Amino acid sequence: MTELSSETRDRLMVVSTATLATILFKRGLRSQFIQGVPRLTSRPLKMVGPAFTLRYIPAREDIDTIEVFRDPEHPQRKAIETVPPGHVLVMDCRGDHSAASAGGILATRAMIRGCAGIVTDGGLRDADEIAELDMPTYCAARSAPTNLTRHHAVDLNVPIGCGTAPVFPGDIMVGDGDGVIVLPRGIADEVALEGFNQDKLESFVLDEIRKGAPLRGTYPPNEETLKRFKATLGDTGSGSGAI
Amino acid sequence: MTELSSETRDRLMVVSTATLATILFKRGLRSQFIQGVPRLTSRPLKMVGPAFTLRYIPAREDIDTIEVFRDPEHPQRKAIETVPPGHVLVMDCRGDHSAASAGGILATRAMIRGCAGIVTDGGLRDADEIAELDMPTYCAARSAPTNLTRHHAVDLNVPIGCGTAPVFPGDIMVGDGDGVIVLPRGIADEVALEGFNQDKLESFVLDEIRKGAPLRGTYPPNEETLKRFKATLGDTGSGSGAI
Amino acid sequence: MTELSSETRDRLMVVSTATLATILFKRGLRSQFIQGVPRLTSRPLKMVGPAFTLRYIPAREDIDTIEVFRDPEHPQRKAIETVPPGHVLVMDCRGDHSAASAGGILATRAMIRGCAGIVTDGGLRDADEIAELDMPTYCAARSAPTNLTRHHAVDLNVPIGCGTAPVFPGDIMVGDGDGVIVLPRGIADEVALEGFNQDKLESFVLDEIRKGAPLRGTYPPNEETLKRFKATLGDTGSGSGAI
Amino acid sequence: MTELSSETRDRLMVVSTATLATILFKRGLRSQFIQGVPRLTSRPLKMVGPAFTLRYIPAREDIDTIEVFRDPEHPQRKAIETVPPGHVLVMDCRGDHSAASAGGILATRAMIRGCAGIVTDGGLRDADEIAELDMPTYCAARSAPTNLTRHHAVDLNVPIGCGTAPVFPGDIMVGDGDGVIVLPRGIADEVALEGFNQDKLESFVLDEIRKGAPLRGTYPPNEETLKRFKATLGDTGSGSGAI
Amino acid sequence: MTELSSETRDRLMVVSTATLATILFKRGLRSQFIQGVPRLTSRPLKMVGPAFTLRYIPAREDIDTIEVFRDPEHPQRKAIETVPPGHVLVMDCRGDHSAASAGGILATRAMIRGCAGIVTDGGLRDADEIAELDMPTYCAARSAPTNLTRHHAVDLNVPIGCGTAPVFPGDIMVGDGDGVIVLPRGIADEVALEGFNQDKLESFVLDEIRKGAPLRGTYPPNEETLKRFKATLGDTGSGSGAI
Amino acid sequence: MTELSSETRDRLMVVSTATLATILFKRGLRSQFIQGVPRLTSRPLKMVGPAFTLRYIPAREDIDTIEVFRDPEHPQRKAIETVPPGHVLVMDCRGDHSAASAGGILATRAMIRGCAGIVTDGGLRDADEIAELDMPTYCAARSAPTNLTRHHAVDLNVPIGCGTAPVFPGDIMVGDGDGVIVLPRGIADEVALEGFNQDKLESFVLDEIRKGAPLRGTYPPNEETLKRFKATLGDTGSGSGAI
Repeated sequence: MTELSSETRDRLMVVSTATLATILFKRGLRSQFIQGVPRLTSRPLKMVGPAFTLRYIPAREDIDTIEVFRDPEHPQRKAIETVPPGHVLVMDCRGDHSAASAGGILATRAMIRGCAGIVTDGGLRDADEIAELDMPTYCAARSAPTNLTRHHAVDLNVPIGCGTAPVFPGDIMVGDGDGVIVLPRGIADEVALEGFNQDKLESFVLDEIRKGAPLRGTYPPNEETLKRFKATLGDTGSGSGAI
Repeated sequence: MTELSSETRDRLMVVSTATLATILFKRGLRSQFIQGVPRLTSRPLKMVGPAFTLRYIPAREDIDTIEVFRDPEHPQRKAIETVPPGHVLVMDCRGDHSAASAGGILATRAMIRGCAGIVTDGGLRDADEIAELDMPTYCAARSAPTNLTRHHAVDLNVPIGCGTAPVFPGDIMVGDGDGVIVLPRGIADEVALEGFNQDKLESFVLDEIRKGAPLRGTYPPNEETLKRFKATLGDTGSGSGAI
Repeated sequence: MTELSSETRDRLMVVSTATLATILFKRGLRSQFIQGVPRLTSRPLKMVGPAFTLRYIPAREDIDTIEVFRDPEHPQRKAIETVPPGHVLVMDCRGDHSAASAGGILATRAMIRGCAGIVTDGGLRDADEIAELDMPTYCAARSAPTNLTRHHAVDLNVPIGCGTAPVFPGDIMVGDGDGVIVLPRGIADEVALEGFNQDKLESFVLDEIRKGAPLRGTYPPNEETLKRFKATLGDTGSGSGAI
Repeated sequence: MTELSSETRDRLMVVSTATLATILFKRGLRSQFIQGVPRLTSRPLKMVGPAFTLRYIPAREDIDTIEVFRDPEHPQRKAIETVPPGHVLVMDCRGDHSAASAGGILATRAMIRGCAGIVTDGGLRDADEIAELDMPTYCAARSAPTNLTRHHAVDLNVPIGCGTAPVFPGDIMVGDGDGVIVLPRGIADEVALEGFNQDKLESFVLDEIRKGAPLRGTYPPNEETLKRFKATLGDTGSGSGAI
Repeated sequence: MTELSSETRDRLMVVSTATLATILFKRGLRSQFIQGVPRLTSRPLKMVGPAFTLRYIPAREDIDTIEVFRDPEHPQRKAIETVPPGHVLVMDCRGDHSAASAGGILATRAMIRGCAGIVTDGGLRDADEIAELDMPTYCAARSAPTNLTRHHAVDLNVPIGCGTAPVFPGDIMVGDGDGVIVLPRGIADEVALEGFNQDKLESFVLDEIRKGAPLRGTYPPNEETLKRFKATLGDTGSGSGAI
Repeated sequence: MTELSSETRDRLMVVSTATLATILFKRGLRSQFIQGVPRLTSRPLKMVGPAFTLRYIPAREDIDTIEVFRDPEHPQRKAIETVPPGHVLVMDCRGDHSAASAGGILATRAMIRGCAGIVTDGGLRDADEIAELDMPTYCAARSAPTNLTRHHAVDLNVPIGCGTAPVFPGDIMVGDGDGVIVLPRGIADEVALEGFNQDKLESFVLDEIRKGAPLRGTYPPNEETLKRFKATLGDTGSGSGAI
C-alpha cells in the first residue's frame, strides 16, 4: 500500500466531509459516511489518516475476563501499540455502544504514539478526559462499562463495518463536525484534489450568498459566477478546471 | 391565511415550549411536540414563526442525480428562495437522518432572506457552520451526505409530518432549548396569550421556590399565592385573569 | 438501611464510573450502568447518593389530567418533597422520553431541599434551566410535554428499572461525564474503597503514559510499576493493598 | 373489586379488539392497545378476563440465580399458582424480549388452574408447545433464555405498563388476532355492551359490502341502512339504541 | 399514463420479487424493495398492479375525530371507492404501525371493486379476516386502533414513501412471499420481460442444482449451461437473448 | 478440532434450546442465544451442527457489482460449496436484514451438499421456497434484494457475531421453535448430556403438571418428585445423576 501523500493529507485537512460526500455520491458511492458516530472531541479538530482497524465480536463471559489484559498480545492493547503514526484507529463494535471500546489511558497512549484519531461505533469511557485530548475522537456514545462486558477483540487490520460503512485497512478516514467519511484508498488522491477545489469554490459561493446573491446562478454557479470565482484564484488558479 | 400578529410573536418569544405543551395538553392536543429534533444552534436563540413546509420522499437513484440542482425550480432550492421572511422552513424527511436535508450555503441564504428558522427531522450538513448562524436551527442529526442520497424533494407548502408531529402550512412553530412545538394556526393567538400569562406566573413561582417555598400551595398556586402573584403584576396585571 | 458513610461518599466523589464499572464487572455485575441517560448538566458536576425511586407507568387519558397536580399526594410531587437530603431521585419512565418526567420548578425545589441529583430514563423539560442548576441531572432527552402526556406516577421507593439497569431504593447512584452507575447497597462501601485505590493507581498510570510509557508493564501494571506507584503514596499509602 | 359478569364476558367473547379500540377512542382513550405483542397461539382463540399482573425489573446477576426458583414465594412462581381462574396473567418486562418471562411448564400449570390467558411484552420459551395450548397467549417474541437472564420478578398485582399500555389489576384484557386491548375496569361493562351492538352492526355492514354496497351510506350507515339493520335484529333488537 | 399491458402483468405474475430486485440492482436501483412490510395474506397469492397512493400525516386530536368518516370525501374512504380496478392501494403511514390504516370492511370493499392488493407501512385491523381475502395484502403489523388514532389522511395519488421506498402513482407494485417491490413505471415493461426470462433460467438452474450440479458453471450459468437451458426453451425460446 | 460425536448430536436433537439456555446460564453464559433470528422453516425441524461461518461487511457500490458472482472464489459462493456436511452455515450480516444473504438456489445447493442448516442475522430471499426445504433455516427477515445491495462477503470460518451472540467456527448450533443457541465447542458434550437428562426430567414434570400437580415440589422437583422420576427411567436411568 502506498503512503498517504502529504499533499493529499494537506488538502483533506481543509475539505469538509460534506463536500467529500457529494464527490463520492457523484461516483456512485452512497454509503461511505459513518452513521451514528458523532464527534466526541470538544474542539473542532479536523481528522485525516489511513484506517488501521480493530474488529470486535460479542463478548463471551468465560473468555472475556479481566485477566485477558495481562496479555500484551490482546488485540485491543496491540492495536493501541501498533497503530502506525498518522493512522486512524477504527473499531467495529457492531454498533453496540452499551460498553466502551477504549478509555482514557489507551486513548492517551494512542495519541502519544502519533495516532491521528479514534473512530468507534461502540462507546468510549473516561469521555470527559478523551474529549480534551489533542487527537480527534468519534464514538457512538459515552459508556462506562469495560469493553469486556460486550466486546471480544479478535482481529487487527481486516476489512470491517463501522456504523454501516465499509472500512478497508488503508482507506482514508476524514472527520469534522458532521462526522466521519471513508475514502476508498484507490481514489483518495483524486477525491482530495476535487474536494479541495470544490471547497474553494464553495467558500467563494458562501461569500456571495452572505453578500445577498440568490441561489440561482450562484449555487450551483453559472458561467459568470465561475468566471468571477476563477478571477479570485489568481496564480493558484490552475486547479479550477476540475470543478 | 391571516398573518402572525406582532403581539402574538412577541408573546411567544418569551414563552417556553414546556408551557405551551401544557396548554395544548389541556386542550387535548398531545402530539404537537416534534420528537427527536433537538436544537443545533449553539446559542439559546428563541424561534417563532409560521411554518413553510418542504416534503421529501425517499430518493430514487435514477432521478435524484447531482444535475437536478441545475434546475432553480427544484423544490429544495425553491423552498429556500421562497420561504417568506419571518417564516420557519419545516422539512419532512420521514425521520431519516442518514443524509442531510440542507447545508451551510442554503441555510445562510435562508437566513439572509429573513427566514425565522429551520426545522428538519432529517440531517443537516456543515453543522458547525450552521450552529453559529444568527438563525435558530433544529435537526435530527449532523449528517454529511447530500440530500439526494436519501431524499427526493416533492412538494412545497403541503401538510407534512415532522418528527411524529403534524405540521400544516401556517401553523406557528416555536422553538427553545427543549425543542420545537407546533401551534395549530387557529388557536395560536389564544395559546400565546395564555402561555404568556402562565409563564409570568411560573417565573413568580420559580422565584418563590428558590426562596424555599414548598410545592404545596405554590405549584400549582393556591389562592394566596395567586394573590401575591397578582400583586406583583402592578399596572401590567390585566392579563392574569386568563391563568 | 444504614446510611451512606461520609467516607464512602468522599471516595465516590473522586472515583470514575468507568473504574466502578470494572470493579462491578469483576464481581460478575455487568448491567449496572444506566444505558441511554447522558448528563444534562453543563458543568462536570459529580453525583453521589442513595437512590430514592419514583415509578411511572404509561399514562391513561381519563385519569392523567392536569387536575391531578392539585393533589399534594401525587407521587411525582410527593417524590420532590420527600426525597431525603443527599439522596438521588431516580425515575423509571420505561425509557420513554417523548414526555418530560420533571421540569425546572420541580428540579429547583429538589435542589433546594438538598437532593443530590436527578436521574430519569424519560425526558426533562426546561432543560436549559435545569442544565445550569447546582445539582447534577441525567435524562434520556430534552422533552417539552408534561409528564401526564405519557407517564402516570404510581409508586415511591420501590425497586425499578432505569435505562435497563435495576435500581433498588438505597442503592448508591454515582454519576460523571460517562453517565450513571448503580452500586448495590450491600457492596457499596467495599466497591468505593477498591475504586478509590484503583483510581489513584490509574492516575499514576495515566501520568506514566503521558510521559511516554508503553502499555506493556504499565497498564495493567507489572510488579515494578506497582512498586513505583506505591512509593508515590507516601503516608497515605496504606490502602494500596486492595488494588 | 366487582367480578366480571358473565354477560359482559359473553359479549366480549364476540367483540373484536378493533371495535373496542374505536369505542375507547371515542371516549378519549388512545393508548389501551398493547403494542408489539402479537398472538402466539396457533388457533384463533379469543381471550377475555380481568388482569392479574406481574412486574419485572432488570435482573441483577448476584440475586437472580437459578436457586431462586427453590423458593415457592418467588413472584413468578407465585403468580402462576395464584392467578385466579378466569383471569389473564399480564407481565411487564419493560418490552425486553431478549429473555423469556415464562415457559411451557408454567404456562401449562396456569392453564390447568383456569387462567384465561397470558400476555407479556417479554419473551416466551417452549413457544411451539405454548402455541398449542387451549389457552390464548400473547408475547413480544419467542425467546429461549430463562427469565433470570434479564428479568427480576418483584411485584404481584400492582399497576404496570405492558407494551406501552397502562394495565391496572382488574382491568379487562381482551385479545384476538389483532392483539390485546385493555378495558379500564370502571367502563368495561358499558364498553362491552356498546361493542357488542357495534359488532352486530359491523357484521351487517360487512355483509352489505360483500353484496356490493358502496361505503357511502353503508359505512358509516345512514338512516336507511340503520333501518334495514334494525329490521334484521328481530326480537333481539332492543340493544341497537346504543349504536 | 399508459396502462399496464396484460402481457407485462402476466409476466410479472410469475416473476419473483427477488429476481426483480436483482434486475433493478443491475440498473443502479437499490431502494425499491419496501422494507418491513411482510405479507399478511395466509395463502401465497401473487400481487401485480399499478400504484394508487394514499398519504397520511400524523393525526391531530381536534380534527381527527370519529365524525370525519361521515364525509364521503374523506381521503381514506375516497381511496377505497376510487382505486381503479387492477390497481394496488399503497399507503404512506410514515412507518408508524401503532394504529391501523384500514380494516376488514374497507379491505373487502376494495376487493369487491377489483383492487389488486393493499400495501401499507402502517397497521391493518381485523387482520384475521383480511388475511383470508382473495386479495393480497401487506402491512407492517396487525394493529387494532382506528387510523384516526395516529394517522390523518391528506392526499390521493401523490408520490409517497412506503417502508423507505419511493412510490410514484402508476409505479408497478409486485408482491410475493418475500414482500413488495416497486418498479418505476417507465421501465416496468422491460424489467418484466427481463425478469420473466431470468426466472425461466433460474427455474432451470434450480432444477440442475436439485439434481446435484455444483454452483460453478451452473449459477451463474456458463456457456454450456446456457446452451442446455436454451435447448429446453423450444419454440418459446426467442426471449432468452435478454438473459 | 474434534468432530461432533453422534452421541452428542443425537442428544441435542431432542433437547430444547430453552433447556440449553438454562444450562449455559448456570455456567455464567448469558449471551449465547441468537436474538432476533426466528425459524423460517414451516415445519418444526430441529437443527444441530457445528458452525461454519461467513462474514459480511457493508457493501461498497464500486466493488459489489453483479459480476463478482462470476468468481467461484467469491466467499458467499465458496461458503455454500465448502460448508462440510453436517455443519450449519452461520452468517454475520451485522443484523442488517434490508437485503438477503442467500436465496433459494444457494440454500438448495447447501441442502444437497448435506448442510445441517442456515442461520443469518440478515435476510433470506425466495423465502417461501426456502421455508419448505428439508433443512432448517433461520433468518432475521424475508428480504428480496440481492446480498450485494448491502453485504460484502469477506471471510470464511472466522469468529463472528450473529444476532448479538458470539459464534466461533466449530461451536455447536442448536435450533428449534424458540430460535438458535450457540454452544461453545469445548463444553458442548457435557452440556448436551446435562440437557438430555434435564429434558427427560422436564417431560416428566410437564406430565405431572398436566395431571394437576402444583409447581411447589414439582418444578423445581423436590426429593420425592425426583424419586418418582428416577423410577420411571428404568434401565435407561443411569444418566439421572447429572440432574
